[in-house]
Amino acid sequence: MENIRIGIVGYGNLGKGVEMELAKNTDMSLEAIFTRRDVNEIKPYTNTKVISFSEIENYVGKIDVLILCGGSAKDLDYQSVFLSKNFNIVDSFDTHAKINTHFNEVDEKAKEGNKTAIVSVGWDPGLFSMTRALSEAILVKGNTYTFWGKGVSQGHSDAIRQIEGVKDAIQYTVPNEEAIDRVRNFENPNLTVREKHTRECYVLVKEGYEKSEIEKAIKEMPYYFDEYDTVVNFVDEEEMKKHKEKLPHGGFVLRSGNNGENNKNNSIVEFSLKLDSNPEFTSGVLIAYARAACRLNKENNIGAKTVLDVPISYLLRVNERSELNKYL
Amino acid sequence: MENIRIGIVGYGNLGKGVEMELAKNTDMSLEAIFTRRDVNEIKPYTNTKVISFSEIENYVGKIDVLILCGGSAKDLDYQSVFLSKNFNIVDSFDTHAKINTHFNEVDEKAKEGNKTAIVSVGWDPGLFSMTRALSEAILVKGNTYTFWGKGVSQGHSDAIRQIEGVKDAIQYTVPNEEAIDRVRNFENPNLTVREKHTRECYVLVKEGYEKSEIEKAIKEMPYYFDEYDTVVNFVDEEEMKKHKEKLPHGGFVLRSGNNGENNKNNSIVEFSLKLDSNPEFTSGVLIAYARAACRLNKENNIGAKTVLDVPISYLLRVNERSELNKYL
Repeated sequence: MENIRIGIVGYGNLGKGVEMELAKNTDMSLEAIFTRRDVNEIKPYTNTKVISFSEIENYVGKIDVLILCGGSAKDLDYQSVFLSKNFNIVDSFDTHAKINTHFNEVDEKAKEGNKTAIVSVGWDPGLFSMTRALSEAILVKGNTYTFWGKGVSQGHSDAIRQIEGVKDAIQYTVPNEEAIDRVRNFENPNLTVREKHTRECYVLVKEGYEKSEIEKAIKEMPYYFDEYDTVVNFVDEEEMKKHKEKLPHGGFVLRSGNNGENNKNNSIVEFSLKLDSNPEFTSGVLIAYARAACRLNKENNIGAKTVLDVPISYLLRVNERSELNKYL
Repeated sequence: MENIRIGIVGYGNLGKGVEMELAKNTDMSLEAIFTRRDVNEIKPYTNTKVISFSEIENYVGKIDVLILCGGSAKDLDYQSVFLSKNFNIVDSFDTHAKINTHFNEVDEKAKEGNKTAIVSVGWDPGLFSMTRALSEAILVKGNTYTFWGKGVSQGHSDAIRQIEGVKDAIQYTVPNEEAIDRVRNFENPNLTVREKHTRECYVLVKEGYEKSEIEKAIKEMPYYFDEYDTVVNFVDEEEMKKHKEKLPHGGFVLRSGNNGENNKNNSIVEFSLKLDSNPEFTSGVLIAYARAACRLNKENNIGAKTVLDVPISYLLRVNERSELNKYL
């Protein structure tokens, strides 16, 4: 049996998720966890060795695929480029506006080193991107809609935490069910930002600060909140702790299209996710694409790739054609 | 701009759907419709020439991909094998139990002729197969559920028509919403055949026959109806005509899985379709995969393939990487 040797780079929620999910994939082994923190700070679930990121080059040839588990803004922008010269990698780079640049930078380095790098893997970008592309290829005439949530947006939670007087905050993006139903009912609506999502905030305030002022600061914050209907709830330490136990998320992609004579018939394609734990689910996606990165590289299919470039058969452990055909 | 020359084989509901949808795909042209019927019987929507199937070999080299629009049982079993030696083909072979055999037979012929054949394309098998495979690769621990409908089952409608005294019949497969909601609520239920779907029949009876006997014959029919809760409605000519105007269908694939420490977190992946016209939507799928068959063949990627072997990028008209990355 094949054994794919995996390395995890970065040990936050996503890194931990990958470590736990890997145990279910019997064709893979976890060789090492790489961190930029003090290695003694990291206590893995499994008895995997923890190695300083500065020593990662010593693992060239000893690891088949690195799964990069850092954030897009501070880690992946340079790590993916740096590492893809000597390793096959998978990352979850998710700053939509910068994906094309990131892709090109990684592509150049990966080709220099004959490596394969699958970037922007996860669910959006990732599975949602696949649904958007697939459904548009099939329903040429139509409209595509993406809704997110209900789930925690780290970016919006961080934005609230920047306000003076805020001790902690968590923000849920909530999709408007009525808007989704209008799409499902073939209405092909034009939806404003406000009509698609509402923003639900839970805020813990430091002593001596005026709640009404903080609420106003949140609701008027440009780009993050001003275009939305925003609800602000003030909570105590205990309730805040409960909100932070899980990181639920999910969402919906819908394509509403028309077929046939005079385009009189309607079709709806819908893909949705409901996740108790966003990072744990994303871990599963990264692992499946790590398998694909390994296989593509063995076939000398090098350079940067996205989920749109990888056949689904490459994600599966089955190799026998008859086993694969059972999914049909 | 690339032009992919298409031929349609078989001019029933599916062939008509392909003809109408092709007009939306500006990178393709419809060269000919091939039929086993008298060519004068066929009146296409467009001014496409209609050619006898017996003359199809004259079109070798003049057509890039044939889209096969016949039925699995009587047409595709031999047509796909016969044609794949000299043409790139796409078919919608959907007899699940025979797909592996069909695949192998087509694979052999296509390889003999250096052609590419994508078989079992549509939504089930097809898009639903992709969702089953993809979600199982990601959620390793979990259960997959497929529900069909609400929609017309041609097989079950035909079965009713075989009963003596039945002039015409139409059967809708109806998914049990309560069962689907149990899956969505992370219950991971074990569902019996009866719990998943009900069967709704509309029957037009010939004069002089006893309705109660026909109802009994339907409900007790082995395999088709006896394992289900079946509702039989008797209708007049006019109502039957209304039922036959459209061929709606759809369905749901769900994967319910567990992640994280002690697998305590739940995830649901759901893919669903709601279609006014089953054959027209399926036409869109076949056309997108015809584009892929043409590209794969140009790359000398020959033999039989299924939807699991084709990257989504091959279905799209965009060729520029920056355009493709916009889907991310």
